[in-house]
Amino acid sequence: MSWVDGQPAEGLPIHDRGLAYGDGLFETIKVVGGQPELLDRHLQRLTRGCQRLAIPCDIDLLNNNLSAFCAELGRGVAKLIVSRGEGRRGYAPPIPCRPRIVLTGSPLPDYPNAHAEQGVRLFPCTTRLAEQPILAGLKHLNRLEQVLARAEWQDSVFAEGLMRDSSGRVIEGVFSNLFIVDSDRLMTPSLERCGVAGVMREEVLERAQQAGVSTHIGDLSLDQLHRADEVFMCNSLYGIWPVRQLDASVWPVGPVTRKLQCLVNDLSSNT
Amino acid sequence: MSWVDGQPAEGLPIHDRGLAYGDGLFETIKVVGGQPELLDRHLQRLTRGCQRLAIPCDIDLLNNNLSAFCAELGRGVAKLIVSRGEGRRGYAPPIPCRPRIVLTGSPLPDYPNAHAEQGVRLFPCTTRLAEQPILAGLKHLNRLEQVLARAEWQDSVFAEGLMRDSSGRVIEGVFSNLFIVDSDRLMTPSLERCGVAGVMREEVLERAQQAGVSTHIGDLSLDQLHRADEVFMCNSLYGIWPVRQLDASVWPVGPVTRKLQCLVNDLSSNT
Repeated sequence: MSWVDGQPAEGLPIHDRGLAYGDGLFETIKVVGGQPELLDRHLQRLTRGCQRLAIPCDIDLLNNNLSAFCAELGRGVAKLIVSRGEGRRGYAPPIPCRPRIVLTGSPLPDYPNAHAEQGVRLFPCTTRLAEQPILAGLKHLNRLEQVLARAEWQDSVFAEGLMRDSSGRVIEGVFSNLFIVDSDRLMTPSLERCGVAGVMREEVLERAQQAGVSTHIGDLSLDQLHRADEVFMCNSLYGIWPVRQLDASVWPVGPVTRKLQCLVNDLSSNT
Repeated sequence: MSWVDGQPAEGLPIHDRGLAYGDGLFETIKVVGGQPELLDRHLQRLTRGCQRLAIPCDIDLLNNNLSAFCAELGRGVAKLIVSRGEGRRGYAPPIPCRPRIVLTGSPLPDYPNAHAEQGVRLFPCTTRLAEQPILAGLKHLNRLEQVLARAEWQDSVFAEGLMRDSSGRVIEGVFSNLFIVDSDRLMTPSLERCGVAGVMREEVLERAQQAGVSTHIGDLSLDQLHRADEVFMCNSLYGIWPVRQLDASVWPVGPVTRKLQCLVNDLSSNT
């Protein structure tokens, strides 16, 4: 199932700047009972991205499109792409600019239950994230770093990969954000230089604060990660996966992780 | 005029990874008399890019496609995109992988003759190039930095913009490479950390060496640029533009630049 600008379509006009330059943004949205989960957070991030890239997207129109699409999809993943639209040769943004809204539906991923229950093992990716503050945090369409990182392993013993920035700081997974628990404090890397600010990361931070868990956003070294009491990954499709192993380090599934899993699982039952 | 995988087409299948992740490469090729200029250099760069990104592209097939397209185009710009092809959700490269070849034609740009004759003024872009050695030099589809840099100015008094890396080194233009002449020596920035290794840059380096001009590739500071005797930009469509002005610095069109313009203009008459 796929729509372009509100109409069922299998193809994208060839001069779209999404293809030419990755000139756009996307959201990957869990849809249950015809309703998009964490919708406000997805729309907020998209709005921030459009502002940063100066893409004049009509968010109300987009929201109407998305609602109708999710209602028809029922249950699955709605991938929403907003591109800067049609353009001829050259980097200069077209004037006038008519952003394009692309929606595609797919089934919910069938991750093993063991990922959430017993935890996952991380692959230590060698592909580094370049530091680019003007694009940091956005879920834009320039994703070659993630493609190269994900191509580093095929063995399904690794459910996710760990990505560091070019200075060696720990940043995130290939398709998830990362948290550690250190002396009962929850910590997640700063995404001021690179990385994608996941909507589930925001949800986890807010739920933790509401539950009285102290939270902190800052720089995280590999050494700090290895010394952490608990480690977990999160994204909007699977919620929270405890991390069981990275290289020689092994972690139990800790109490803070379990507590946050419960809080975040509420999410699905609420929608 | 546009072809997808050798067939005339106006649309691209919506699940193409070129759109989803910018997972591909491109070349912008000048076509005169039905023939692509600097073809070997374009194909070499594309081959290097496919190797680096592990895109299993059949270069002979692509070359046949391109030849037929250029013959039909006659005169203009052939933009060639190679994407990793169709993929469902997720960063993991699809297995099997069938790369897609997209060709679009457009007229040659109508730059004023004054750009090549009297030189151009550069806009000092504030958008910096992130340092990412694994992607450096490639003409890949992740081009948001160039889009943001090109959006910094609208005034046509600036024909190009100057881009620096996040450490402040001078790297290139938004759609060109940069050279300076310093004490009769030709110098162009290293593209080991970021930047696009233009085919005209290679051509200029080779022609200069053949003409007995000493050449050097290395790091270039903004200070060195301002102190240079001559500055010029180049790309495969317009050849060489002398740089007349950047901020408070003003340069004459110097003898080395003029000599190289003559050498590079030969190119068109040869094809």
